[in-house]
Amino acid sequence: MSDRFALTPDPPYYAVIFASLRNRDDKGYAETSDRMVELAREQPGFLGVESLRGEDGFGITVSYWESEAAIKHWKQNAEHADARQRGRLEWYEHFELRVARVERAYAGPRGVRE
Amino acid sequence: MSDRFALTPDPPYYAVIFASLRNRDDKGYAETSDRMVELAREQPGFLGVESLRGEDGFGITVSYWESEAAIKHWKQNAEHADARQRGRLEWYEHFELRVARVERAYAGPRGVRE
Repeated sequence: MSDRFALTPDPPYYAVIFASLRNRDDKGYAETSDRMVELAREQPGFLGVESLRGEDGFGITVSYWESEAAIKHWKQNAEHADARQRGRLEWYEHFELRVARVERAYAGPRGVRE
Repeated sequence: MSDRFALTPDPPYYAVIFASLRNRDDKGYAETSDRMVELAREQPGFLGVESLRGEDGFGITVSYWESEAAIKHWKQNAEHADARQRGRLEWYEHFELRVARVERAYAGPRGVRE
């Protein structure tokens, strides 16, 4: 199985679904994006992440968390707060962020969790 | 704002998060994928979809639905069931499907819903 997938436990857990359209200006975006994934992995309650971005600048990142408290703790991380502020000011044309409680999950076509 | 984003109402509503890795064989995949989006848009309770796939075959599609009942109704659509079966047998190396209840949502960086 590809390492592009998040190896999450049985539900319930939480998903942060972040759909975004980047502008054309790169000013440090790539480094910050990589750093945020690295930093997220160190947070308590982080379960995994699935992410990609197309050549038109549209991307989807879904991060998975044990609890609402873990999401709140990550949101309050100072380095993450700075990165979000730069994102709003410099990097994103538009984004939609949704916090959701995962209730059921399946893997396929022949995964052990199927 | 790009039409890549789903224009969803205020929560709560449901998200089906489908992360998948395609194989190299195209045998009708593109037509079926387009047809499934077209068919999904006609279903009761469909709210929108955000989707992309990279050159390595990894993709994320998040579809949004009014209710669990709407998701169940779509799952029982015969043409959709046939497409899922072909996907399992022919098109996907691996997938992870998660059904989640969206509890909070924000838009940015300067959307009206921010």
